[in-house]
Amino acid sequence: MLEIDTIRTLAADMVQKANSGHAGMPMGCAPMAFVLFTNFIKQNPKNPRWVDRDRFVLSNGHGCALQYIIFHLLGYKITMDDLKNFRQVDSITPGHPEAKHGIEGIELTTGPLGQGISSSVGIALAEAHMAATFNREGFKIIDNYTYCICGDGCLQEGISSEASSLAGHLKLGKLIVLYDDNSITIDGDTALGFTEDVLKRYEAYGWHVSKIDDGDHDLEAIKNKIEEARSIKDKPSIIKIKTTIGFGSMHQGEEKVHGSPLGDDDIKELKKKFGLDPEKKFHIPNSVYEFFHKISARGDQSEANWNKLFENYKLKYPELAAELIRRIEGRLPDNFESFFPTFTPDDPAQATRKYSETVLNNIADHLPELIGGSADLTGSNLTKWKTAKEFQADSTGLGSYDGRCIRFGVREHGMAAICNGIASYGGLIPFAATFFNFISYALGAVRLSALSRFRVLYIMTHDSIGLGEDGPTHQPVETLAGLRALPNILNFRPADGNEVSGSYLEALKHQHKPSVLILSRQGVPNLKGTDLAKVRLGAYIIVDSLAGKKLDLIIIGTGSEVSVAVEAGKLLSEKHKLLVRVVSMPCWELFEEQSQEYKESIFSKDVPVLSVDILKNDPSVEALSALGWERYAHGSVSMKTFGSSGPYKKLFTKFGFDADQVAKKALKLIEFFKDKKPDWKVCRFEE
Amino acid sequence: MLEIDTIRTLAADMVQKANSGHAGMPMGCAPMAFVLFTNFIKQNPKNPRWVDRDRFVLSNGHGCALQYIIFHLLGYKITMDDLKNFRQVDSITPGHPEAKHGIEGIELTTGPLGQGISSSVGIALAEAHMAATFNREGFKIIDNYTYCICGDGCLQEGISSEASSLAGHLKLGKLIVLYDDNSITIDGDTALGFTEDVLKRYEAYGWHVSKIDDGDHDLEAIKNKIEEARSIKDKPSIIKIKTTIGFGSMHQGEEKVHGSPLGDDDIKELKKKFGLDPEKKFHIPNSVYEFFHKISARGDQSEANWNKLFENYKLKYPELAAELIRRIEGRLPDNFESFFPTFTPDDPAQATRKYSETVLNNIADHLPELIGGSADLTGSNLTKWKTAKEFQADSTGLGSYDGRCIRFGVREHGMAAICNGIASYGGLIPFAATFFNFISYALGAVRLSALSRFRVLYIMTHDSIGLGEDGPTHQPVETLAGLRALPNILNFRPADGNEVSGSYLEALKHQHKPSVLILSRQGVPNLKGTDLAKVRLGAYIIVDSLAGKKLDLIIIGTGSEVSVAVEAGKLLSEKHKLLVRVVSMPCWELFEEQSQEYKESIFSKDVPVLSVDILKNDPSVEALSALGWERYAHGSVSMKTFGSSGPYKKLFTKFGFDADQVAKKALKLIEFFKDKKPDWKVCRFEE
Repeated sequence: MLEIDTIRTLAADMVQKANSGHAGMPMGCAPMAFVLFTNFIKQNPKNPRWVDRDRFVLSNGHGCALQYIIFHLLGYKITMDDLKNFRQVDSITPGHPEAKHGIEGIELTTGPLGQGISSSVGIALAEAHMAATFNREGFKIIDNYTYCICGDGCLQEGISSEASSLAGHLKLGKLIVLYDDNSITIDGDTALGFTEDVLKRYEAYGWHVSKIDDGDHDLEAIKNKIEEARSIKDKPSIIKIKTTIGFGSMHQGEEKVHGSPLGDDDIKELKKKFGLDPEKKFHIPNSVYEFFHKISARGDQSEANWNKLFENYKLKYPELAAELIRRIEGRLPDNFESFFPTFTPDDPAQATRKYSETVLNNIADHLPELIGGSADLTGSNLTKWKTAKEFQADSTGLGSYDGRCIRFGVREHGMAAICNGIASYGGLIPFAATFFNFISYALGAVRLSALSRFRVLYIMTHDSIGLGEDGPTHQPVETLAGLRALPNILNFRPADGNEVSGSYLEALKHQHKPSVLILSRQGVPNLKGTDLAKVRLGAYIIVDSLAGKKLDLIIIGTGSEVSVAVEAGKLLSEKHKLLVRVVSMPCWELFEEQSQEYKESIFSKDVPVLSVDILKNDPSVEALSALGWERYAHGSVSMKTFGSSGPYKKLFTKFGFDADQVAKKALKLIEFFKDKKPDWKVCRFEE
Repeated sequence: MLEIDTIRTLAADMVQKANSGHAGMPMGCAPMAFVLFTNFIKQNPKNPRWVDRDRFVLSNGHGCALQYIIFHLLGYKITMDDLKNFRQVDSITPGHPEAKHGIEGIELTTGPLGQGISSSVGIALAEAHMAATFNREGFKIIDNYTYCICGDGCLQEGISSEASSLAGHLKLGKLIVLYDDNSITIDGDTALGFTEDVLKRYEAYGWHVSKIDDGDHDLEAIKNKIEEARSIKDKPSIIKIKTTIGFGSMHQGEEKVHGSPLGDDDIKELKKKFGLDPEKKFHIPNSVYEFFHKISARGDQSEANWNKLFENYKLKYPELAAELIRRIEGRLPDNFESFFPTFTPDDPAQATRKYSETVLNNIADHLPELIGGSADLTGSNLTKWKTAKEFQADSTGLGSYDGRCIRFGVREHGMAAICNGIASYGGLIPFAATFFNFISYALGAVRLSALSRFRVLYIMTHDSIGLGEDGPTHQPVETLAGLRALPNILNFRPADGNEVSGSYLEALKHQHKPSVLILSRQGVPNLKGTDLAKVRLGAYIIVDSLAGKKLDLIIIGTGSEVSVAVEAGKLLSEKHKLLVRVVSMPCWELFEEQSQEYKESIFSKDVPVLSVDILKNDPSVEALSALGWERYAHGSVSMKTFGSSGPYKKLFTKFGFDADQVAKKALKLIEFFKDKKPDWKVCRFEE
């Protein structure tokens, strides 16, 4: 078929010109993508953000030439020059699809295998929830399918197992996965390492499964099976479609067509074989354009119909309509800030996870877009607020799709990917919770939250050796260092109730960044001087014994160690008559954004700085300053090894985190600066 | 049964005394563990390191009281006092089982869910390989089973899906998993989120499956099903055993018995119900001890028989026997160092992944304990050496168990966990390979390599924006920061061929640490001054224009940026007549271990230091120095954002990593130090 063969040869041309990329997948998947986009997918290329569009996710993102070509044919904002610029610096056609990058209509950033299909589960979940929330009798305002194409790689990744198992449990019937079963992975035949019965596995998850034996030619079968899948409402569907990778190439069906250009000769032969002019590159016959423009016009009409429906909805349900618009735009409710609790030192000491629960209880009813849950640690993460309803399929009797408490199961990576999907859908602010240590299981997806600029909240409790008896397998020491190095993410480690409130507020206000809320298991007092409103500064002074005199020391801490710093400061002031400032630094990233002037008001010239942070860790037993804290501090009290199992107070003492030991270290630091010039000066260099 | 009920009540006593822990699982799993340890497991408590012991892994490690109690009863080195010290600081009975911690006989550190069962696949794989390598007609020197107990949580984690799918493919028939199906997770009934058909899924993986309806009482069925599983040689087995969590407690079968002490009253009632004295705590009747000592004596006899066999094996195959002993002890071959290649600047520029391939080709035949592979990127990671045979089941016709090239499939997390299992088995040095960015998928298991002190090599290629067109989804920028903060791991980023050689040598020599080898996709020249032998110092001078005069600048770099640093240094020397030193720093962790004197010979007093490292990243766009490099450098050329898709040379220019831009930055840094006192002095504080 001319349309399909045009897509195939164009993909080969793009990869050839870039001298880099993956032609095999687009050539093999062109038929299924063609059937999908021309028969089923409801989108309007002129308005790729139309709320009720069907979502399409290319989970095997290395095949993105396919999506770029189809988008070009359909009239999305992507020109022939963009196709020719495939994989070039600053083009809008990078090597893998990037959401929010250049091409509107790319729903998700994919490429890291397994992420796309897993986030598709989140998209389908979001659709189910939004439909249950906003649809009314006669007004199916939200009613779209989520289609995903994926390959063998995606289905080998554990993340897709996690998300798929949950999708089956949740009966997300409007999720339809087309599995490109081409029997080839990068290493060679799937017989080398992937011989499981995939469809049987998906049946075990509770999915509807079907298969197509000749996905290279049998367009009718593809159409029929997709139709069948659409008709099954209470199960997600997977259609296994047997294809030939690099269809038409002289090396079709071999791994060598997976990730390299075919070569000019092969491409010429290919075009001949398809009856196309072998000398023409990047050629699209007019009839092909015309064909796709008709499809595109249909999409335009679909949206026009929907707009009419929505006008009537507005008349009948003005508040609901306004609320939908607000949420899709990602704006927070107007009076939102007023619901955040504040605390005073008279309030009893509690774990910061407990303050987090209080915040959730206070804000959740006023923030209906908040949806999420825990990876089977709900009672420990304290993320289920009092009025929260369960998100479950009606038929289970356990809840309904308008619920906002998701039971993710013990599936951290899948959870994070699902949250990316929910954020991608729009109108929702997803959150994911587990022990902080187990964000390591989910980092592949957390990274994509940051890269995709999704507002996902990671509520991470049990943040240090302070969790006590569970021991080093559960005690993060290195975790925050990696997260602080990740671009476009905010890491909050609040010291007490006010800072927990302030951290949530900042996290929610940053519409295009994910945030990690790092919370303690153990109780911490509400400190004098902490301030909800100052969290936005990243760091601020909470104790200052300055009275026109030169400070002796600044102690800086985060989270549960701030109260230790305050105690140590008190001890140094009272016993040793020293002038000490204590700084709380709930968020490095926000502090780095402050003015030089503000920064200098926190760190005074020539005053030694001691950091107290139980999370940071040193790569060796000899060095004394902790990784990362060199930026701010001259000395550090930090973890140098893994933690240990025991009651947390004993662990704090064992590892040096009590007022006495901190004060002792502080005195040595001051002493050190009295009679000795430092050897290696490391300074802030400003250009 | 008295033995089983004694275990149950003892577990309840332990958790009660610690006021922390998990009694529910030991009470539910006591019957299956009892049947397993008293009927099947071949171990000698007097010598827990006996090579041919059966391996036992408690994948639901939170139930470790169960294992501690059974080990105590069998006569392992764990006293009643140790049981009473459960979860206390510096006890040998921490909150989760820790390999190499205190109790000999713990094979794996577990607790993070899914790790134990996945590493069990590695143990079974190692057994198959060692048996194929060392057994001879009439001498089954290696012939043991791997048993694993796991719960619902382990089976929800994607890591176990990955490893289990591969185990089925590899037909690891001596792996037997007992699945504690108690229908309860921390959140409540598994109906909330885990409703898939687990056995059907395992059938799809190619496992033998069976089930037991009453795992609380039906010891005979447990015994029969384990026997059946042992008889099936070409498939791993999973036995689903229906149990009651917290069996006997007044809250049996509920989630509240999962993770909290039962309370004194409940424990008293429990003991009454079992016919035990409700007033006696930590009580073990003599008959129970006697029963277990008989089992233990049987193990002693088993080892004695094996020793006899091994004596004969030694006589018949003295070289093979000596080799087995060497390998089990973890010693490298004597002449080992002589096989590492060295390079000169006349050798052509190649990617460091390519030098890595050369190293593997040179050493693999001389290091038969090296075994591993790639997560479906073999041709990109270049980890298959010329003579490597495939590790596959004989019946597939694709290879055999004595092969050393493992096809892990697209399963990074499973791969790392399997490598932990292989390392745990002994006699082998496993390696895992993928793109550096995707070590993020595997961090949960990498962390356990470090915590468990396993010598696992992570061969990570495509280490930066230098990978080019694949774009930011594949370009790590933050990854190394997290790894550098992890205790007990070595991170190598070699600059050229000599440093690749040296990095492998150091990685292999560190018997109790994992190492990450971070390698480029793109070519780098062999530099004058690099030295295989100096990699052990972590950092060393490769260019020094010092001639009795004061240096103007030190430039320090790692990996592919070292050659950029050399070029920039040359430019500054020739054009600007500056005295510049260039330092290569392939391994921070090894440098931190050096003497103060050595460190000061690298970083001279009062000389500004500029770091050039494409991997490090800054949390904000304003700050100029890169996270972590503050320790050594006054200014940095580093990544501040995610990368981008494009040819790598253009990306290097775009992001500032060419000699011109580095030299420009260097001049500004020198200028800055000429007329301006730095504001925030951050210095090395030495206690």
